[in-house]
Amino acid sequence: MSLRGVGVEPRCRCSGTESRRIGKLIEAVELFPPNLHCKETEIIATLKNGQEICLDAKAPWVMKITEKIMANRSP
Amino acid sequence: MSLRGVGVEPRCRCSGTESRRIGKLIEAVELFPPNLHCKETEIIATLKNGQEICLDAKAPWVMKITEKIMANRSP
Repeated sequence: MSLRGVGVEPRCRCSGTESRRIGKLIEAVELFPPNLHCKETEIIATLKNGQEICLDAKAPWVMKITEKIMANRSP
Repeated sequence: MSLRGVGVEPRCRCSGTESRRIGKLIEAVELFPPNLHCKETEIIATLKNGQEICLDAKAPWVMKITEKIMANRSP
């Protein structure tokens, strides 16, 4: 589950991450850098069905997805 | 017409992009890959004050910001 909201939240948004490679289902990806409340970068993917899922920022397939999007390609 | 789901919109979200280097102000970054409605990757940054701003996915400073976040560092 992800907790989204404007501004600062008191702890990490993600309590776990998705391990399956769900790149084809992804509509958008949100990156939250480390901050006072969470020392790890968090990545929340919005799927094409509207669902939000936390991804592992250290997983190679997740890094590839962000690289592909930055290169103007679909994940 | 109904728009189903998060992120399904009939055209690009951004009509322009921020040229100033505002990395230090960024709270989160959202990446939207190209899709049927918009042929370019779009990047929307949420600033620490809650404001949302479109960034240029091709600007080297913007690419560096996403790389830094993925490397578990602050932008």
